Amino acid sequence: MTQIPENGYIIGVDVGGTKVAAGLVNSLGEITFQSRTPMVANDAAAGLAAVIAAIDSVRAVARLKPELQDLISGIGICAPGPLDPRTGVVVNPPNLPGWRNFPLAAEVSKVYRLPVRVDNDGNAAALAEALWGAGRGYRNVFCTTIGTGIGTGIVFDDRIYHGRTGAAAEGGHNTIDYRGPRCGCGKLGCIEALAAGPAIARRAAAKIADGRSSSILEHASGPHAHVTSEMVGRAYAAGDALAKEVLQETAVFLTVWLGNIVDLLEPDVIIIGGGAGSMLRPFFGEIRDLLPNWCVNSHCQEIPLVAAHYGADAGIAGGAALCREIPITT
Amino acid sequence: MTQIPENGYIIGVDVGGTKVAAGLVNSLGEITFQSRTPMVANDAAAGLAAVIAAIDSVRAVARLKPELQDLISGIGICAPGPLDPRTGVVVNPPNLPGWRNFPLAAEVSKVYRLPVRVDNDGNAAALAEALWGAGRGYRNVFCTTIGTGIGTGIVFDDRIYHGRTGAAAEGGHNTIDYRGPRCGCGKLGCIEALAAGPAIARRAAAKIADGRSSSILEHASGPHAHVTSEMVGRAYAAGDALAKEVLQETAVFLTVWLGNIVDLLEPDVIIIGGGAGSMLRPFFGEIRDLLPNWCVNSHCQEIPLVAAHYGADAGIAGGAALCREIPITT
Repeated sequence: MTQIPENGYIIGVDVGGTKVAAGLVNSLGEITFQSRTPMVANDAAAGLAAVIAAIDSVRAVARLKPELQDLISGIGICAPGPLDPRTGVVVNPPNLPGWRNFPLAAEVSKVYRLPVRVDNDGNAAALAEALWGAGRGYRNVFCTTIGTGIGTGIVFDDRIYHGRTGAAAEGGHNTIDYRGPRCGCGKLGCIEALAAGPAIARRAAAKIADGRSSSILEHASGPHAHVTSEMVGRAYAAGDALAKEVLQETAVFLTVWLGNIVDLLEPDVIIIGGGAGSMLRPFFGEIRDLLPNWCVNSHCQEIPLVAAHYGADAGIAGGAALCREIPITT
Repeated sequence: MTQIPENGYIIGVDVGGTKVAAGLVNSLGEITFQSRTPMVANDAAAGLAAVIAAIDSVRAVARLKPELQDLISGIGICAPGPLDPRTGVVVNPPNLPGWRNFPLAAEVSKVYRLPVRVDNDGNAAALAEALWGAGRGYRNVFCTTIGTGIGTGIVFDDRIYHGRTGAAAEGGHNTIDYRGPRCGCGKLGCIEALAAGPAIARRAAAKIADGRSSSILEHASGPHAHVTSEMVGRAYAAGDALAKEVLQETAVFLTVWLGNIVDLLEPDVIIIGGGAGSMLRPFFGEIRDLLPNWCVNSHCQEIPLVAAHYGADAGIAGGAALCREIPITT
């Protein structure tokens, strides 16, 4: 694999089911420009064209500044898994049905003749945090992105831990309740089924249906009346007691789960990002206080539990970070 | 830290609450001689003297063969945690109350002027399996020892994964049931509380108390009539249906737990040792069959699930393995 120079810029690309975000990322992990392009999910060639268009839009900006153009030294893409990070082949992502065993890295690299790296969003976000964000300076980084699902990434010494085939760090599907609610993945009691955005919304809705009083429904942003985790977050910010209760329960589930992670991995830092993750920030202190109940590690409270540096642009930074990682040698 | 030569012998020492086992281990991980000495648990100096006596008994044998004497190049000790593997200080082991912040490595190394390494039994056993046993040739090794408790060890590229302070790989205290039975550690639903020897015995005893018919009680080795996991194992071997049921339930718990481990770490191999672990060997096939129900990793069944190479002498081999590990550089 080509080694990428230390200085210069990387184009970071975040491929989702509905859009492609791309940005120019400098060697400090700063995103100096970004753009969004609609994604075509059900056709391989059109999907690739959307990714190329997103990259071109970034290069067009770079072209305005000739000194940048020559300094673009790689393209890093974070894409929905499952995928093979060693080959850059996207295997069969549920939200991108057009890409079945699609050699994304090879196709993009044909167009630009630049090194291209591909990994999943959980791994890429964790690497960006380790290199440039809240995990900088720590050897063993555990990063979780709590949104519609719960993604995780493990970075040891600034390298993503991939496991046997690149499918490691699916910690969001670790169960803490084998008799618990069914997760989208089919398992029971995964932390994703208990603490991601939809679970937060579902528990709030159930309490409201039980007749509990709350302002949550007043926080709908549109005419739809069903509860979302964002509404719970807004209601909490406005002082709603039920919203607080739901987020506190979520914090307890996360504590049980992080207790397992700490006992198994004892990371140097735990980083929490994502939309629901950032909503839970006021509860980080409670998680730390409860951790000794759910962890045999007697030093567990010394492990920093911090908010992610990158927000909605974690995918762009994560994509770019892939090009700063030491190449995988296996 | 002194580098230990490739050839030659290591004295491996396994310190427990009631005995010290020591052995001479060659560079292939073969134990050529071993001895046992009673341990003194409640006095620091007497405990150290027991360890020294155990080491001396091995050296006495070596002295009979002068060509061995000069080839002993290190002493590796596996001791009850918590301990600091970087300094060789035993912190406060519950079953060795005499050793509080006891500098075991330093004390032993004073006596013999040989490099001394110390680590806990789960880590040491995993390293021995990785270097010489069932994990040989695999990069990412997960090893569990199922006995009175459940110990675990993680070895990446022939090095123990220690985490932040050396307290990682306490996977036996990962909960899969946060509303489950209380573990000795205080947490609820740890796999140790569900699947270690005492849990196997407890579930069998409860079924017998419920009036279920079984030959388990006939398998007592002495006059005591309370159920032990060994009795369950013997009854299963003799065709007892209730014993089979209890071991099958245990296999399901282990599947849920290993599903979490696979999703988080995707090891190249899973090694199961220990007394209860070896009793569960006939159920490894069931665990593999059930794994896809408890794991999002679509390649999970490709991961070898194998019995440990070392049995009761895992601690001696584990101790010796510590002296074959690349020194920790932090």
